[in-house]
Amino acid sequence: MTETVHSASLAVFPGSFDPITNGHVDIIRRGLSVFDSVTVAILVNQEKKPLFTVDERVGIIREVWADEPRVKVDTFSGLLVDYATRVGASVIVRGLRAISDFEYEFQMALMNRRLQPHVETVFMMPAEKYSYLSSRLVKEVFQLGGDINGLVPPVVLRHLHDKRDGAQ
Amino acid sequence: MTETVHSASLAVFPGSFDPITNGHVDIIRRGLSVFDSVTVAILVNQEKKPLFTVDERVGIIREVWADEPRVKVDTFSGLLVDYATRVGASVIVRGLRAISDFEYEFQMALMNRRLQPHVETVFMMPAEKYSYLSSRLVKEVFQLGGDINGLVPPVVLRHLHDKRDGAQ
Amino acid sequence: MTETVHSASLAVFPGSFDPITNGHVDIIRRGLSVFDSVTVAILVNQEKKPLFTVDERVGIIREVWADEPRVKVDTFSGLLVDYATRVGASVIVRGLRAISDFEYEFQMALMNRRLQPHVETVFMMPAEKYSYLSSRLVKEVFQLGGDINGLVPPVVLRHLHDKRDGAQ
Amino acid sequence: MTETVHSASLAVFPGSFDPITNGHVDIIRRGLSVFDSVTVAILVNQEKKPLFTVDERVGIIREVWADEPRVKVDTFSGLLVDYATRVGASVIVRGLRAISDFEYEFQMALMNRRLQPHVETVFMMPAEKYSYLSSRLVKEVFQLGGDINGLVPPVVLRHLHDKRDGAQ
Amino acid sequence: MTETVHSASLAVFPGSFDPITNGHVDIIRRGLSVFDSVTVAILVNQEKKPLFTVDERVGIIREVWADEPRVKVDTFSGLLVDYATRVGASVIVRGLRAISDFEYEFQMALMNRRLQPHVETVFMMPAEKYSYLSSRLVKEVFQLGGDINGLVPPVVLRHLHDKRDGAQ
Amino acid sequence: MTETVHSASLAVFPGSFDPITNGHVDIIRRGLSVFDSVTVAILVNQEKKPLFTVDERVGIIREVWADEPRVKVDTFSGLLVDYATRVGASVIVRGLRAISDFEYEFQMALMNRRLQPHVETVFMMPAEKYSYLSSRLVKEVFQLGGDINGLVPPVVLRHLHDKRDGAQ
Repeated sequence: MTETVHSASLAVFPGSFDPITNGHVDIIRRGLSVFDSVTVAILVNQEKKPLFTVDERVGIIREVWADEPRVKVDTFSGLLVDYATRVGASVIVRGLRAISDFEYEFQMALMNRRLQPHVETVFMMPAEKYSYLSSRLVKEVFQLGGDINGLVPPVVLRHLHDKRDGAQ
Repeated sequence: MTETVHSASLAVFPGSFDPITNGHVDIIRRGLSVFDSVTVAILVNQEKKPLFTVDERVGIIREVWADEPRVKVDTFSGLLVDYATRVGASVIVRGLRAISDFEYEFQMALMNRRLQPHVETVFMMPAEKYSYLSSRLVKEVFQLGGDINGLVPPVVLRHLHDKRDGAQ
Repeated sequence: MTETVHSASLAVFPGSFDPITNGHVDIIRRGLSVFDSVTVAILVNQEKKPLFTVDERVGIIREVWADEPRVKVDTFSGLLVDYATRVGASVIVRGLRAISDFEYEFQMALMNRRLQPHVETVFMMPAEKYSYLSSRLVKEVFQLGGDINGLVPPVVLRHLHDKRDGAQ
Repeated sequence: MTETVHSASLAVFPGSFDPITNGHVDIIRRGLSVFDSVTVAILVNQEKKPLFTVDERVGIIREVWADEPRVKVDTFSGLLVDYATRVGASVIVRGLRAISDFEYEFQMALMNRRLQPHVETVFMMPAEKYSYLSSRLVKEVFQLGGDINGLVPPVVLRHLHDKRDGAQ
Repeated sequence: MTETVHSASLAVFPGSFDPITNGHVDIIRRGLSVFDSVTVAILVNQEKKPLFTVDERVGIIREVWADEPRVKVDTFSGLLVDYATRVGASVIVRGLRAISDFEYEFQMALMNRRLQPHVETVFMMPAEKYSYLSSRLVKEVFQLGGDINGLVPPVVLRHLHDKRDGAQ
Repeated sequence: MTETVHSASLAVFPGSFDPITNGHVDIIRRGLSVFDSVTVAILVNQEKKPLFTVDERVGIIREVWADEPRVKVDTFSGLLVDYATRVGASVIVRGLRAISDFEYEFQMALMNRRLQPHVETVFMMPAEKYSYLSSRLVKEVFQLGGDINGLVPPVVLRHLHDKRDGAQ
């Protein structure tokens, strides 16, 4: 490559993040080691009943990454590839944990590629210790009284406690 | 990120490439859309009996990418992560086709991460039409007289014919 | 086999077809290359809320195959194997795309075999380019404004537009 | 181990058992060949709408194992590992049938291990003839008029008929 | 379809059959329920060292199917699709047992389709009780003195004994 | 169970152990938490060329478990279930890491069950951090100069160094 100008590489990391887990945090950190910046893009899905509102999720993730200007937080509705194109991202980052992930992720990635061929999906592997983590499982265990310390960032733990205490 | 200087991102794409297929070419092209340069790193494995010598494979891949200065071709022996570190690459690119790939690739990626935590493996997905391709299968079909036009670059096809004619 | 009379082989291709996709069309076409006729059998499931009514789905599929008398369209409720037996079909055709398909399909096929041993399930493989297609994904992408041209027959596209326009 | 006293090994076999199938019965029987006793632990999940009440399910399973004092029947809510600890069980037994099982089971087993490291999950394999069985599928086939004789214990079949007749 | 003449459907069932197992027999029987005739096509692979010669394998399979004129036995080398085309078969039948099968079978089927689009591969499911069977495993167990009665046709068992006795 | 006498439960953990890894050690430790004793049974396979002789492997494993009388070390040839029966073990323990394991392990377990129905195979899950470990991979990484400290017991590391130094 003879050019000396390099356009900064921007990756989008999409999801529901209801709430963000340490598995997500791990993938974002790995994304930062490969790309110039990572935009955590929260899907606004009006059909699902989330535990945290979109605004709460934006606030939590901003708090988690307060010291890292290379992580942006944003929301989107509509097609992911349209969003990526709009913000000038040519890469979608996805964590890949297991076979069921694999199937679903490949289906989405192939559809996204068809819809927008110049946005590429890359898969990264979380640390083994997060291989069983999911937002759904974390919420379920917390609601049953299990200790999820170490599975989510401290700020998420605090918000989960607030939500439970507020609900009483 | 406040820095304005960006260190060019270099990705290593390792393999045997005996010979390179259009599936490999597809992944390298996708790699170029994400990374500044891609080094095709041919594993020198003295136990296996390849169809093409390492020198032939280097020559073929150089010919395939003659017009793309961002693709380098190199050989390595020893640990892949040691090689990546030596050439200043922080990313290993691997194509991910199917479940059996998935298993093996994850095992290698996790071992590589343990050996060298600052080299990250990212997985990219080939076009569906290459999902069944492998160097082994291409050689087998060619040797049985099948038409592999469109499955390998023209230069590989020419070398396969030369090799077969020369062997007679 | 000493008989000279050959009873025409009739295959049933069951599903929800809400709507039929080009992946389904591909499997039906492949079925026609193996069997004398293929009956597209729409499962009437009163619990699910479909996008298209059963009648609309029958009409769409009839329109898609208007020029092919070897494709029949029918509806059924109750057990698939009872339906197959009733219409004299000894074969159920299913498309097989991926691992998750595989698991579910095998479970159903083994149960069907137990319920009716003389109805055999055969699996056919769609073209790679349809490997990520599903009715659900097509509807989702259409509703988000994505281009699904090439993923469904033109008549389905027209009906999807009518349905959306009519809903406004 | 120098102790001569052996504390009896108690395994917990958790599930919804709505209703118990011959696949469950098979795993329990295999569990009895390895452990001193097996406690069938019915998860009380107030969100799901079961076919049989928890009391009915306890009654049915007790009837199935009336002649085997080494099988206990119990119910639990909250975390499975907390329940196991409370009743002094150090082993959770799970049947492992197929890939989708595998994924889900491993995720749960790893989370359970994290929550309570001294409770171990062991997986046992049902007879091949039960490899496609699930409570959900049995109910569905029964409701569609299919013959499920041989797939569930006779007492379950009787209760299914009573439930259907009573509903009329 | 306006023709009244039906060309008999011929399916090819390829493999090494070293030796044929009851799993193969099961698939052939199922193939006969769907197709007019099934040709068992033994791959002549000069690199592998088989237990039984190609002639022995032809003889064994002929003996197994002595009473079924709809089963033919043949050998082939070269590309399977070329062989199928040569004998006028438009269908390749493969048994599908498990995930590893699935991956390999799909890779071969997609390559075969590319080499010869008008030959279709259909997959059939063996009985569950044969889901773990393979020629390799049967030979291994027999050589270690295990009882393989019920896993292979009686004629195979006799030949295995002859081979072992003859080798002493 | 009314009996007060409990026959000690003996589990067999079979493998090549060339060499034993920390993944094996992890499974043995988990086996000890469930069973009274675990016999590490080294398969004597005269066709394979191992790195360590059977005697060396016995010595290494004995050294690893020198302080744990509940772990026995033994060798066997022939059928595993015959060996298990001979030593009075009713349980075979296997570690289950991933899909490829899963397939192979289920095939072997189903065959073993057929050969000897009263020997049951139970599967246990290693710690996630050992999910990518295998004897083959450990040897390969060591031979390429990689650091395998933490992947094998110290005694194995010492023997690997001795073997390499002695080979020079």
